Amino acid sequence: MKCSYSALMTDFYELTMMQGFLEKDPDRKAVFDMFYRRQPFGGGYAVFAGLDPLLDALENFRFYDSDIEYIRSLNYFSDHFINYLKGFRFKGEIYSVAEGTVVFPNEPLLRVTGTLLETQIIEPLLLNFINFQTLIATKAARVCCVAGDAAVMEFGLRRAQGTDGALSAARASFIGGVKATSNVLAGKEYGIPVKGTMAHSWVMSFESELEAFLAFSDMYPDDCILLADTYDTLTSGVPNAIKVFEKLKKDGRKNYGIRLDSGDLSFLSREAGKMFEKAGFPEAKIIASNDLDEWIIEQLSREGARIDAYGVGTRLVTADRDPSLTGVYKLAAKEDEGQFVSAMKITNNPEKMSNPGIKNVYRFYGDDGMMLSDLVLLEDSMEEVNTLIAEKKPIRLNHPSIEYSYKTLENYSEAKLLLHRVMEKGKRTEKPIPLIDIQSHAKAELAALHGTYKRFLNPHIYKVSLSNNLKKLKMSIIKEHMDDKNTD
Amino acid sequence: MKCSYSALMTDFYELTMMQGFLEKDPDRKAVFDMFYRRQPFGGGYAVFAGLDPLLDALENFRFYDSDIEYIRSLNYFSDHFINYLKGFRFKGEIYSVAEGTVVFPNEPLLRVTGTLLETQIIEPLLLNFINFQTLIATKAARVCCVAGDAAVMEFGLRRAQGTDGALSAARASFIGGVKATSNVLAGKEYGIPVKGTMAHSWVMSFESELEAFLAFSDMYPDDCILLADTYDTLTSGVPNAIKVFEKLKKDGRKNYGIRLDSGDLSFLSREAGKMFEKAGFPEAKIIASNDLDEWIIEQLSREGARIDAYGVGTRLVTADRDPSLTGVYKLAAKEDEGQFVSAMKITNNPEKMSNPGIKNVYRFYGDDGMMLSDLVLLEDSMEEVNTLIAEKKPIRLNHPSIEYSYKTLENYSEAKLLLHRVMEKGKRTEKPIPLIDIQSHAKAELAALHGTYKRFLNPHIYKVSLSNNLKKLKMSIIKEHMDDKNTD
Repeated sequence: MKCSYSALMTDFYELTMMQGFLEKDPDRKAVFDMFYRRQPFGGGYAVFAGLDPLLDALENFRFYDSDIEYIRSLNYFSDHFINYLKGFRFKGEIYSVAEGTVVFPNEPLLRVTGTLLETQIIEPLLLNFINFQTLIATKAARVCCVAGDAAVMEFGLRRAQGTDGALSAARASFIGGVKATSNVLAGKEYGIPVKGTMAHSWVMSFESELEAFLAFSDMYPDDCILLADTYDTLTSGVPNAIKVFEKLKKDGRKNYGIRLDSGDLSFLSREAGKMFEKAGFPEAKIIASNDLDEWIIEQLSREGARIDAYGVGTRLVTADRDPSLTGVYKLAAKEDEGQFVSAMKITNNPEKMSNPGIKNVYRFYGDDGMMLSDLVLLEDSMEEVNTLIAEKKPIRLNHPSIEYSYKTLENYSEAKLLLHRVMEKGKRTEKPIPLIDIQSHAKAELAALHGTYKRFLNPHIYKVSLSNNLKKLKMSIIKEHMDDKNTD
Repeated sequence: MKCSYSALMTDFYELTMMQGFLEKDPDRKAVFDMFYRRQPFGGGYAVFAGLDPLLDALENFRFYDSDIEYIRSLNYFSDHFINYLKGFRFKGEIYSVAEGTVVFPNEPLLRVTGTLLETQIIEPLLLNFINFQTLIATKAARVCCVAGDAAVMEFGLRRAQGTDGALSAARASFIGGVKATSNVLAGKEYGIPVKGTMAHSWVMSFESELEAFLAFSDMYPDDCILLADTYDTLTSGVPNAIKVFEKLKKDGRKNYGIRLDSGDLSFLSREAGKMFEKAGFPEAKIIASNDLDEWIIEQLSREGARIDAYGVGTRLVTADRDPSLTGVYKLAAKEDEGQFVSAMKITNNPEKMSNPGIKNVYRFYGDDGMMLSDLVLLEDSMEEVNTLIAEKKPIRLNHPSIEYSYKTLENYSEAKLLLHRVMEKGKRTEKPIPLIDIQSHAKAELAALHGTYKRFLNPHIYKVSLSNNLKKLKMSIIKEHMDDKNTD
């Protein structure tokens, strides 16, 4: 699948608003934050993903001739606006968290600066890429965490939500720790190792299971995983597999095993393991598949299932139980008379209020290298906070919505800034990072996150706090709004 | 987004099996059925979708030069096989149910005939297209059924599972009854009406809400839906909207209203409705959005919410609560010495057994035009069943897995065959059907399905039965297998 992203991959209201901005003040600038509000899967963290494909799409984001024709055919837009679209390119600036970073709700993950027009039209595409890939990288991290030493492979193409739902899920799964994919195109596009064995139809196309196994082992003697459950796993599949292993071992081959795709995987894997042991093949691998997810794998692992690798498909790539991330894109500042003025969304629900102003995030670590807490701060007060950090002075962590509530952070050994510039004037500032390096980064990040944040049930809530100035700014905007509302 | 489907959009094991089939018997033919096993969302039906894009992809399915290079780089396949792939095109035959048709578990929706090689490699792409689009068309039908006279619009791009998860979901949603999409590219690609209003950021980019509303109404006086909840719906949004309606009505405009995107939509819509009424604008429209789904809309409708249209996004396009359809692709027959021999998947779980042989489906209707029951039958016995139908004789409906169980269908007035040839030698046999006609077909199908099958909780189970010959064939294959197993 080769795709070029037309700028029509947007919501209609972005175009109606753009036309308004063009008439009113085409050069007026704005700053938007992308963040999410709720942890997916009831978990304690997310793994940020989708940035590199997004930057690629933004560099190529344009209205093709046929797009312009289509927009004209709607009889909704002026010639002035349509002509503007013809030459449109995204020329804005983007700060972002690095892909593979562990992130939390209500902290900015991306910050986009540009004209109101250009920052607005990219909203749906940006959210689509980041929401979905972050969701899947998170799901994959959850699966890989409980799989432990067993490798996890992504097998989701046939049940994914569309072709790109498969392709970008393969990429995001790899970031989250998956070792291989069954999706050959994902292998080509992203350099992910591709894996696969045989289907039931292979076995059924032969007169007998043994014939099917032997034909396969002749072709692939060095990577011979036999599907053992077409007829009956323990009375047919495993005994036939053992006959094939005998031949392979005699020929000096080492990489053979079975795949279990039905039945009780815990029981069957232990029974098959015993049969392999007894027949002299303790090294034979067992791969398990069949609607697996992190909860089932946790259970299998707890029961001591004898499984060397998991093939996880449907429930990984569709993010079963929570198929969307709640990422949003909110105005943080707008230009007024040449100056940026902080903006925020005000609602009756304090948890839905955004944080105003041009911001960044500091993450603090303890002596043991583990993450302690995140601090969202205004770029304006960066120097002040930098001085405190340089002198290892206490940092005040203000609660994001309860006015009186704060904590003081004292024993930290390091602070890392999370948002860095990745795009300037519509061009990437750096070369793409190899996917394997992004995977390593995610692995290191997850290792620096305490286990209490990773448990599935009632995980510890990681604190994302506001700096003094940001808290002050937020409260002053809210109060002004409350006063306006009550004196109207 | 312009995409051409590379044949690499497949699972790796299809390639390993293909190489085996090529060595063994490249011309050997097979027949595969695509069907699904479990009703999505715990509902009583599904709406079949995804066929036309699938046929399009199959006509263009090939290995590009860079794909061939990639496959070679894996060092897994022979030159003979790689050369074969270079010239590979899908040349098979496909029978299918028409898009928009109401369908049920365990009846064939597509039947693919061709060489084992070609029928096997298209499996993941076929399942990806049909599973996802059928899932979303079904979700959309559920939403539209409870929305009644209120129009439903699809707003899901930003939270969809990838770009194609958005684009193909827009298409499938339209088949299921949605009237418009926010996705401009879907508008262009599929001719779906596009709709949209304004975002909170539009309101926030002005000094006041009223200014924002007035600027919008100046630009779009004939389609003026104002987002009413940026500050406070009833004390600010609605009163400001009324000021704008006054001006619009004076100018002879007729199409104005508000969008509610937060708060209690039932309460707010009724309160806003009263305020409109009192101010002399009973015609003002109210559009509701905010994480809606069929359950919430059913509740709103039951409470008499004053809502003219719904914008449904995330939960529609991601098929919230059940994000994948359980569609599978199983061998039904294989060529042996020039003859097709029936095949079926045999497992310990009777519900997971497939139906053998080359089949079609008859759907029976009553005098009132309502669907009565479906009968899966062998093509071999078609003439026999046709005679019974022509003479309106009783038809025996055999239970799909319980051996002794059957019913007799007597009072039917019509029978329609569901599977028709849509592809021959890799080319479509008919021009694509316009999407609006597919939507109309789905609407007519849903009208012919009794309400008891459409309820959300414990819907009536529609019967899909087997013809006499098919039941006999299935039981004889199972018995032979049982005997083999117990005498081994």
